[in-house]
Amino acid sequence: MLTGLFIGRFQPLHYGHIEGIKFALKDINLLIIIVGSAQASHDLRNPFTAGERIEMIRNTLIKIDEIDINRILIIPVPDTNVHALWTYSLDLLVPRYDIVFTNDPFTIILYKERRIKISQPTLYYRKKFTGTLIRNAMIREGNWKQLLHPETTKVIEEISGIERLKKIWAKSREQQD
Amino acid sequence: MLTGLFIGRFQPLHYGHIEGIKFALKDINLLIIIVGSAQASHDLRNPFTAGERIEMIRNTLIKIDEIDINRILIIPVPDTNVHALWTYSLDLLVPRYDIVFTNDPFTIILYKERRIKISQPTLYYRKKFTGTLIRNAMIREGNWKQLLHPETTKVIEEISGIERLKKIWAKSREQQD
Amino acid sequence: MLTGLFIGRFQPLHYGHIEGIKFALKDINLLIIIVGSAQASHDLRNPFTAGERIEMIRNTLIKIDEIDINRILIIPVPDTNVHALWTYSLDLLVPRYDIVFTNDPFTIILYKERRIKISQPTLYYRKKFTGTLIRNAMIREGNWKQLLHPETTKVIEEISGIERLKKIWAKSREQQD
Amino acid sequence: MLTGLFIGRFQPLHYGHIEGIKFALKDINLLIIIVGSAQASHDLRNPFTAGERIEMIRNTLIKIDEIDINRILIIPVPDTNVHALWTYSLDLLVPRYDIVFTNDPFTIILYKERRIKISQPTLYYRKKFTGTLIRNAMIREGNWKQLLHPETTKVIEEISGIERLKKIWAKSREQQD
Amino acid sequence: MLTGLFIGRFQPLHYGHIEGIKFALKDINLLIIIVGSAQASHDLRNPFTAGERIEMIRNTLIKIDEIDINRILIIPVPDTNVHALWTYSLDLLVPRYDIVFTNDPFTIILYKERRIKISQPTLYYRKKFTGTLIRNAMIREGNWKQLLHPETTKVIEEISGIERLKKIWAKSREQQD
Amino acid sequence: MLTGLFIGRFQPLHYGHIEGIKFALKDINLLIIIVGSAQASHDLRNPFTAGERIEMIRNTLIKIDEIDINRILIIPVPDTNVHALWTYSLDLLVPRYDIVFTNDPFTIILYKERRIKISQPTLYYRKKFTGTLIRNAMIREGNWKQLLHPETTKVIEEISGIERLKKIWAKSREQQD
Repeated sequence: MLTGLFIGRFQPLHYGHIEGIKFALKDINLLIIIVGSAQASHDLRNPFTAGERIEMIRNTLIKIDEIDINRILIIPVPDTNVHALWTYSLDLLVPRYDIVFTNDPFTIILYKERRIKISQPTLYYRKKFTGTLIRNAMIREGNWKQLLHPETTKVIEEISGIERLKKIWAKSREQQD
Repeated sequence: MLTGLFIGRFQPLHYGHIEGIKFALKDINLLIIIVGSAQASHDLRNPFTAGERIEMIRNTLIKIDEIDINRILIIPVPDTNVHALWTYSLDLLVPRYDIVFTNDPFTIILYKERRIKISQPTLYYRKKFTGTLIRNAMIREGNWKQLLHPETTKVIEEISGIERLKKIWAKSREQQD
Repeated sequence: MLTGLFIGRFQPLHYGHIEGIKFALKDINLLIIIVGSAQASHDLRNPFTAGERIEMIRNTLIKIDEIDINRILIIPVPDTNVHALWTYSLDLLVPRYDIVFTNDPFTIILYKERRIKISQPTLYYRKKFTGTLIRNAMIREGNWKQLLHPETTKVIEEISGIERLKKIWAKSREQQD
Repeated sequence: MLTGLFIGRFQPLHYGHIEGIKFALKDINLLIIIVGSAQASHDLRNPFTAGERIEMIRNTLIKIDEIDINRILIIPVPDTNVHALWTYSLDLLVPRYDIVFTNDPFTIILYKERRIKISQPTLYYRKKFTGTLIRNAMIREGNWKQLLHPETTKVIEEISGIERLKKIWAKSREQQD
Repeated sequence: MLTGLFIGRFQPLHYGHIEGIKFALKDINLLIIIVGSAQASHDLRNPFTAGERIEMIRNTLIKIDEIDINRILIIPVPDTNVHALWTYSLDLLVPRYDIVFTNDPFTIILYKERRIKISQPTLYYRKKFTGTLIRNAMIREGNWKQLLHPETTKVIEEISGIERLKKIWAKSREQQD
Repeated sequence: MLTGLFIGRFQPLHYGHIEGIKFALKDINLLIIIVGSAQASHDLRNPFTAGERIEMIRNTLIKIDEIDINRILIIPVPDTNVHALWTYSLDLLVPRYDIVFTNDPFTIILYKERRIKISQPTLYYRKKFTGTLIRNAMIREGNWKQLLHPETTKVIEEISGIERLKKIWAKSREQQD
């Protein structure tokens, strides 16, 4: 039995992530989805709490036929003050694993220095599906809904996520005291 | 749809916990199992890491027919330096919930002061099934295996858990420098 | 009896704050002045320690006839690593309160999500009275003294505050190693 | 003008503290009451939050004729991880001061090593007035009310403080999991 | 070239440590002396700061003919909140090493789980040379000086170490408030 | 006997630092080299761990004839969350000292406010020898080797330091998620 980590911040979960998860599930038995920067929320790059992101991920994946929710664990992992300890800190929070799915260059450096196996999922329409573009579309009232699964959109609406993000953005533009 | 929290330290998971989980699943749709003191491991009260405990819980529950793993999330939550912030800190790591299953008096105080609904599962053979008794049996090479599910035992053996616990105990008995 | 919070960083206390405090005192019995970012000092946005800011506030307010110092508490509150916990962390450090006076959009988001009453004091000559403008005037040796109460100026001079701020600014301009 | 610190944990404020405060006010102009271990609450030695303790202190002192509330500041100060940094950390949170009133041997060591002036107030009926005895009387439903000022008692009753303390005590007696 | 770690708390440095250091120097080229619990001081088990302990170690070893100070590095390492991360946290603070000299069972567990080579130096007159016995002798004014090198004693006297330790002990005996 | 501190980040050690160390050694008996920001590594301004930097410093200085390694201690010191506590925090990690060698304006402010003696070493060919220029040369494959001692270069190559720095730089240029 093979276990893999799929690492992301999921601010918010989008179709790029979902394709990556499908890709990873092909080769392994159990996929542990790491919700990174779990301590962060209510800022421009991280508007949603880890709990809200977990709710998006679970509610969405359970509705996708090709994905077997039984083969998925979702674990929130906070950042560490000492960056170089992050992968060791993560190891204490998750079951044993064989491979790491990530495209983040910094995470890749850290795992390479530990000689752990890495797989970089092909990026799915990278020009459209990045958290930054989607959060900007939310602020500008652009067409963000077509980039997210309806179950993810539903969670965002229930928690008044767009209103929150707009206020965070307004604050970042203000003259600071 | 109703969501509940089931809070424990699971050092290790035992049949008392499993009966509590079955009890909680009767009334709710989604049960979030909180692996508390997630930062702790390698000490007498907390020999196992959060990741090891999550592995015990998942591998065990998936083998129990009456439990539908699809209705369960497992989330590690660390202690906070400021005790009174613990439940707020937890709220950031989990989906929204309606009820809390716990027998811990301190957790009960904190939730009561916030007027959140609490349910205390009947304790299952409390004289036999407590983490302290089980850890002591492990140290004394007593009959601990009959108190745990075979899948939990398997994880403990794979990680050389008994050897680790005995060394931690030996250290606690030594004259300190 | 009504209690309110008045939240600010007071880097330094200026006439804009003083007008806000007078406004808040009209409607409530006890005003708790929150000295925010209490852990910060010796940086460009936060040159003064919480203790120095409390000294400015107390020495100044006690000299202003319309303000009854008996109806005021001054409490330093540090930032939290987990931003979304800030208001709960604050709650542990202050007496119970009924209303929050603030113009900070982020604080407003957090309190709105908790459904606590907020009042936004009219900003007093916002083009002149902001901490950023006053700190810049201090660095450029501009006319900052007319923007502060003489008792505030006195504290700043006793602690060699302008000299400190100029050195912090010099450092920020240097090529870093 | 002379400024002094009066350091305590005030769990809860009792007549011993009040006599100490009167003693200190004789010699100085401004007394800064330090509410120590400000991060602690909901444990046996520290049942009350810093905010609750500040409320007890303010509501009580304002009713005592010999005490001029205008000459008092109340500042919460948390413990530091590195014990030896505590007095330096405190210095950042309070106005400049000339003398420290305390009977705590550890605080005395730290201040002596810095050559700062210390005064040890005579202990007022030490056999009756200690936090430990009073908290025990609260748990056993003894005669604790005669040891506290009525305004302090009122705050404790409004926050259901006795109920909280009894639950904390119950937990400490239980067999732990 | 072989590098080794020699791990201790050195509260204070005694002849047992010195014999251990001589033992370790036989087999390796560079010995890194780890001053553990570097954040601790002013408590019963850890009266001396890391800086004071480093001063004892350097001043003493430089006077011992069989020890070549050129082959020694002294590095202070604080404890970590998450115990299981301690050896990884240490790795970031020291040059690369080949072997660990320690008799601490917990450190041995952590290094064994990482499969790093461990050597346990024979304990030198363990009944006499332990930090606990020496600190007790200091408190009781027993014959502690014969257990320490004169250069270590000199540092302790210059910093009034015995006086500090006695006050810490007095505090630990008092009824707490 | 005079003791001095020489404070730097050494990212990496270059000839400018070495000249500064020679300058400082003229006037004092023991020089304590402080490896600052010891917790940082794997970021653009701080690519190397404290341990790697200590290895560079020791291996290099031991090869330089004019420098007596016996008169040098190397101590890693992490940043503090509360900036204004940094020098006090440092004091706990190092032997007692008489003078501080530094050109960092912020460190100078903090020490001046404590009235501790400061010496600013003349900067050695400042246009060539700064960490920023050297790290940029490493990323662009410029002529960085002539700015470093061969023993420092050797450590950087053994740890694949250039490869690490290039990946950190690549990440910093990417569109963030």
